[in-house]
Amino acid sequence: MTLGSNKKSAVVLVSGGLDSATCLAIAKSEGFDCFALSIDYGQRHQVELNAAANVVKSIGVRQHKIFHLDLGGFSGSALTDASVAVPRQPTTGIPVTYVPARNTIFLSLALGWAEVMNIQDIFIGVNAVDYSGYPDCRPEFIAAFEKMAQLGTKQGVEGRPFKFNTPLIDLTKAEIIKKGTSLGVDYALTVSCYDPDKNGSACGECDSCRLRAAGFAEAKIADPTLYQQ
Amino acid sequence: MTLGSNKKSAVVLVSGGLDSATCLAIAKSEGFDCFALSIDYGQRHQVELNAAANVVKSIGVRQHKIFHLDLGGFSGSALTDASVAVPRQPTTGIPVTYVPARNTIFLSLALGWAEVMNIQDIFIGVNAVDYSGYPDCRPEFIAAFEKMAQLGTKQGVEGRPFKFNTPLIDLTKAEIIKKGTSLGVDYALTVSCYDPDKNGSACGECDSCRLRAAGFAEAKIADPTLYQQ
Repeated sequence: MTLGSNKKSAVVLVSGGLDSATCLAIAKSEGFDCFALSIDYGQRHQVELNAAANVVKSIGVRQHKIFHLDLGGFSGSALTDASVAVPRQPTTGIPVTYVPARNTIFLSLALGWAEVMNIQDIFIGVNAVDYSGYPDCRPEFIAAFEKMAQLGTKQGVEGRPFKFNTPLIDLTKAEIIKKGTSLGVDYALTVSCYDPDKNGSACGECDSCRLRAAGFAEAKIADPTLYQQ
Repeated sequence: MTLGSNKKSAVVLVSGGLDSATCLAIAKSEGFDCFALSIDYGQRHQVELNAAANVVKSIGVRQHKIFHLDLGGFSGSALTDASVAVPRQPTTGIPVTYVPARNTIFLSLALGWAEVMNIQDIFIGVNAVDYSGYPDCRPEFIAAFEKMAQLGTKQGVEGRPFKFNTPLIDLTKAEIIKKGTSLGVDYALTVSCYDPDKNGSACGECDSCRLRAAGFAEAKIADPTLYQQ
């Protein structure tokens, strides 16, 4: 219980994408009072943060915090560095859209906020099936982060361990879409594209667009995504 | 080798305190080309960041990055929250000056910057002997963080593991001061106090001031600290 609520609380990382919207809906369906955390990390598109705000408003949370973090100063990723182009064709290995240590940094901030509020549950919508090859979306990474968090925090040391919940980790994109749809997620509000235009319309060609479109097709659910003309 | 240098490179976290100044001097003495990282985390005293700038200038680094991070928005610690008083008497357990997940967040940012620059070595001046009881200054925490970093990064997965160097971890405060003095560290530039005045003068009463003063006394080295009148 936190802040006077009778429900258990959770910090949920919300990016504005399809996965994190579904993750938030699952956390809520499991009875958690949700504190949504979005990170403004100098990503190319403000569109993503607008989507996060709309998703959070639609699903309903106790609080939505947008944390400003200037990772653009670190450069080196197609998602934060304007000099690196987002690929529109499939690539092999870890792609240039990988942002160095991104989920490590995001989970650290979620951990700090959770500890301040005496919250033990943290949700992140990582997925190790239909994903883009990022090392920080794998279950072994999440398990190692959780172990580290118990050792590096007052709350962990004092016997109130953190639990990092990854309800999407073993689902296919189609299964994620079916689950979210059953929970009432409005995917029209979400943006998955790595390179949307200023209106939020998707390119339809990047890794993330391809995975999303294939997921709707496999789930046999109408794809509400707006694509660039 | 990084950025055209023939020397191996390291990211070194520099706070402006006695420990991190010594840590930076040790990294340099071991032949590393140093990239200093200071985090402006909404700590009460700008004095600490000014000290970091002076320390870095005195010891000499390739680059000094000050990363702005508004942890003040998380609140809950005497070091970031003006409504929590810094204790001037000894306390037991983990003190109110503990900042939730601070070293987890700082090391995550150091990890991200290191990976962008293809650097494998990261230095942090944590110390598990004469310390204030923070869980994130212990060797088991650092080891768990290192393991997590290998799993969560492209560099780690591709076989160029990160090494988290903690040269002070087993030293007493007196040993740290002797080591730094032998390397020419000017401790007059450093600020350890949790509650300095605007000129950087120390209170002489907080945990950190007591540990520092006892260290100089035990090392039999003149204490250059300026105390509040």
